[in-house]
Amino acid sequence: MKSVLGVDVGGTKVAVGPVDRTGRQLARPLIESSQAVGTAAFIGGLEATLRKAMADFSKFEPEAVGLACAGTVDGAEGLVYSSPNLPLKEVPLAGILQRALGIPVVLENDANAAVLGEAVAGAAAGLRHVVMLTLGTGVGGGLFLNGRLYRGASGGAGELGHVIVQADGLPCRCGNNGCLEMYASGMALGRFAEVRAGDERTDPTGALSRLRKQGRLTGREVSRLAREGDTGALGVVQELAGWLGIGLVNITHVFDPEMIVVGGGVGELGELLIGPARAFVQEHAMPPARDRVRVAPAKLGNKAGLVGGGLAAWEAFG
Amino acid sequence: MKSVLGVDVGGTKVAVGPVDRTGRQLARPLIESSQAVGTAAFIGGLEATLRKAMADFSKFEPEAVGLACAGTVDGAEGLVYSSPNLPLKEVPLAGILQRALGIPVVLENDANAAVLGEAVAGAAAGLRHVVMLTLGTGVGGGLFLNGRLYRGASGGAGELGHVIVQADGLPCRCGNNGCLEMYASGMALGRFAEVRAGDERTDPTGALSRLRKQGRLTGREVSRLAREGDTGALGVVQELAGWLGIGLVNITHVFDPEMIVVGGGVGELGELLIGPARAFVQEHAMPPARDRVRVAPAKLGNKAGLVGGGLAAWEAFG
Repeated sequence: MKSVLGVDVGGTKVAVGPVDRTGRQLARPLIESSQAVGTAAFIGGLEATLRKAMADFSKFEPEAVGLACAGTVDGAEGLVYSSPNLPLKEVPLAGILQRALGIPVVLENDANAAVLGEAVAGAAAGLRHVVMLTLGTGVGGGLFLNGRLYRGASGGAGELGHVIVQADGLPCRCGNNGCLEMYASGMALGRFAEVRAGDERTDPTGALSRLRKQGRLTGREVSRLAREGDTGALGVVQELAGWLGIGLVNITHVFDPEMIVVGGGVGELGELLIGPARAFVQEHAMPPARDRVRVAPAKLGNKAGLVGGGLAAWEAFG
Repeated sequence: MKSVLGVDVGGTKVAVGPVDRTGRQLARPLIESSQAVGTAAFIGGLEATLRKAMADFSKFEPEAVGLACAGTVDGAEGLVYSSPNLPLKEVPLAGILQRALGIPVVLENDANAAVLGEAVAGAAAGLRHVVMLTLGTGVGGGLFLNGRLYRGASGGAGELGHVIVQADGLPCRCGNNGCLEMYASGMALGRFAEVRAGDERTDPTGALSRLRKQGRLTGREVSRLAREGDTGALGVVQELAGWLGIGLVNITHVFDPEMIVVGGGVGELGELLIGPARAFVQEHAMPPARDRVRVAPAKLGNKAGLVGGGLAAWEAFG
């Protein structure tokens, strides 16, 4: 095969581009808005976008398609069980598109695609044991073990945001208490800030309090303040880093990975967040895993879905 | 190869026997007491036991040796970093024995050996995604993923007892707080009983209180009482089962395994413990992993080290 099409399937837009076996993007991607009104219309629109991409990128001779989308996905079956932002419920998406387009199609969830991207062409390029933690509104995970993606028995592995780290802790949307997601996500960043805002010990500049009055005390705004050096916001990030550290210690003890890659919107805090979390791991994890593991920020950013989707196609058909 | 020697290396005794590639023991094992006084004497004794076994079992033509021992072990390097019950610290045990005996020797920690045994010849025979939790004095773990043992980058993977499940919880011997080991081990069983003993709501028969007066309120004794149907002891087991359930939910979300095998001394409570823990998983884990995972008691019992050690040799050299 010369190339595959990597596809980042989002609720409002779809990005498609040719990817080689090393995860390199061979051309600027085609980006189309996606109409998420009803399953049939959505799939029809996706099919049309893919046909257009096959024509646009024909000189790269793409011979397979790899889709990355958010949600619960069984890659082996090509099935989307459910998705937070797509009108797909128990839809055999890979099979439908494969029959329509006449070339092999594979499906991966966005967390799996992201770790595949980072392990082949990103922060962990060349490593064989890589765990990725994606810190967005929630917390997602992906596992690259013994040099390949690990999906579990039914595509449900790597739900690292729903590891219980405080059994009597805050209720999570999954129905359990104390999931990592409640303490190490963008949501958590906003909530920690809420508690600290307006107290002169934890919000000495009053910046958190001002954001709250404006109704803008979100993870994103707190991150921005922290990057600007606000003491109160930096305290919030420090609190999050302690919980992230617990998550990283757990990952280190379970997987003994060469690297844990931290991505997602909250991960863009970079060393402000990852520095103290990394120090926590060095203080709290056990040898030999502690002495091996590195903790690094993701490199692919918003290219992760497209590149990782493409690499999933290479892994399946290359 | 016709057979290998599987070896369970303990602090007070060593068991050795021939094992075929399916994990079947071909003869009753040779059991020798081991003298754990000093590294050199210990290794010398082990070497002598293995020479005797090679002679005793010569008709099975063993062509490799697989050792299972407790502790932190790097199987790829054949190195024992440290062991709780053996006088071995950073000892390249596999290499030393291989040079002495003239046949290939591989080394595995007891938790890895146990999951290999269960996945090939025990409760999970024939499955490809198996996690084992060994509930003894502490809590150990072993991972069998995509049809093979997963050791991590430096042999440290599978420390499932040191996953933090209650961040502000009880201090663990590893230095952290709230490790699963503090809540789902034999130690925990004794400690839960301590709190419940002598209160007529939680110890209605007074059996826990009597054990405490005799200085015998251990996990083992509480297990015995529970199997005899004592209400107070059954309450203790129920409390442990809730925490075990949290551990099983975490494993289910991380690995999406086909089966979680529960072994070790506490695991011998069988359905008294596993029944409610399994129900907890069905209530608290997310699909699709929840609908796939089975939770079953270990089958190999005290044969796990010998059989699993032997299977490690088959995996390495067969």
